[in-house]
Amino acid sequence: METISKAKAFGGTQGVYRHKSEACQCDMTFALFLPPQAEQGPVPVLWYLSGLTCTHQNVMDKGEYRRLAAELGIAILCPDTSPRGDDVPDEPDNWQFGKGAGFYLDATEAPFAKNYNMYSYITEELTELVAQKFPLDMSHQAITGHSMGGHGAITIALKNPERFKSVSAFAPIAQPSTAGWSKPAFEKYLGNDQSVWRAYDTTALIEDGHRIESLLVDQGTSDGFLDDGLRPWLLQEACAKAGIPLTLNMQDGYDHSYYFISTFMDEHLRWHAARL
Amino acid sequence: METISKAKAFGGTQGVYRHKSEACQCDMTFALFLPPQAEQGPVPVLWYLSGLTCTHQNVMDKGEYRRLAAELGIAILCPDTSPRGDDVPDEPDNWQFGKGAGFYLDATEAPFAKNYNMYSYITEELTELVAQKFPLDMSHQAITGHSMGGHGAITIALKNPERFKSVSAFAPIAQPSTAGWSKPAFEKYLGNDQSVWRAYDTTALIEDGHRIESLLVDQGTSDGFLDDGLRPWLLQEACAKAGIPLTLNMQDGYDHSYYFISTFMDEHLRWHAARL
Repeated sequence: METISKAKAFGGTQGVYRHKSEACQCDMTFALFLPPQAEQGPVPVLWYLSGLTCTHQNVMDKGEYRRLAAELGIAILCPDTSPRGDDVPDEPDNWQFGKGAGFYLDATEAPFAKNYNMYSYITEELTELVAQKFPLDMSHQAITGHSMGGHGAITIALKNPERFKSVSAFAPIAQPSTAGWSKPAFEKYLGNDQSVWRAYDTTALIEDGHRIESLLVDQGTSDGFLDDGLRPWLLQEACAKAGIPLTLNMQDGYDHSYYFISTFMDEHLRWHAARL
Repeated sequence: METISKAKAFGGTQGVYRHKSEACQCDMTFALFLPPQAEQGPVPVLWYLSGLTCTHQNVMDKGEYRRLAAELGIAILCPDTSPRGDDVPDEPDNWQFGKGAGFYLDATEAPFAKNYNMYSYITEELTELVAQKFPLDMSHQAITGHSMGGHGAITIALKNPERFKSVSAFAPIAQPSTAGWSKPAFEKYLGNDQSVWRAYDTTALIEDGHRIESLLVDQGTSDGFLDDGLRPWLLQEACAKAGIPLTLNMQDGYDHSYYFISTFMDEHLRWHAARL
């Protein structure tokens, strides 16, 4: 593992690191903020999974998480959204597939299956790496994310409920297997057998019996992707049927950007801190 | 004036606007955050002047000013750092001169004098424009900035003490007329008569009798530009001789980046709020 950059911020350290990934068969970059409390011993960790087109950097620049994370003593771990590099197959003109659009799944279809294994990367490889390299208390993990990363956070938590003490999302894609901007990616990564897709779809996982203790979701009412892409009502329906307590905050006038995310970052950090 | 973008953030509005500038003879872009209180009536305004290589956007993305500005009811106005456009003379390979390096002065030398008039742009043209277009209480203005923008903020305040109720800076260039990274720009913008340069040099302006009521400066001790470029001890000396109360906070381990700025943004906003 190589340190790309390190800077003091809010008494802690914002770092960026690169390592060779087995799961993705390429170099992967991630950002980690260690609060000042990490100097005294292991701290809880909140994963933040980013949305389409993002890297580890967008939330690091615009997420405004450091002030309160430093106060609460929580590390913030921000992976990339896909494999990277010249050898990784891509559709450069398609922002909804390929690089920047890994959808936090393990692809089964050639030529994507070799690199596009973000599910294993997040839940196994990166987990083991950061546990080994940084003062993190891996018995206290939480997970959140935005848009595609909201989908990632909720599906990963549903499949690993013992791992994550709390789950939240900003404007998550509630049902990626049927949304216009994600269905084509599911087809290309996972093939035509839609029963396989259910393992990476929040509402399908809930229907199939997966459970989390509770869920916080913030969603802007002026989000341009609300009706076709995100559809929080599908999540609301699934949680209601399954008896999963969902706090869904429809935020008047907010869009899909980091202006929205940063506005409600404090609320999410406090939600996780109360459960970590 | 044209609205480039507008998004709700922390209950207020982060906007980006473009207009034809007379002073700079080109289109100029600026960012303005209006806190929620602006819906009820005019609000005080804090100018933030950015450093070398920056546009209006860097602090908008990474400055983390919106949460507290919304709470305190202060508008944050972020101009660009130089004229822009294909017709504006530049040295593309030189990040310390030309576009992105206007140094908040009015150039006198050809071919720069036509466009590089950031002093007049800030103190006259943009002031008049925002006063006319937005609910700003122009009798309550404050000014801050970073690096080259810290130099800009302090020099502009020294020359217009009646305009600004408070002044602060993050890692300002204390004496640009003698610092290695700014002296060549002063020569090219202002010519060889160094007496002219004194009108745009903080320590010279103080020596020449200009005064402000007080000054807050934060400076990271791990800032790579500290010894050659910034030299806060020159500011300390000048303020001490002139009897200007300077609060100079040397912040252990912080660098020159927005990680440093965002960490101490709250402290600066509260400094200005107490004086506005």
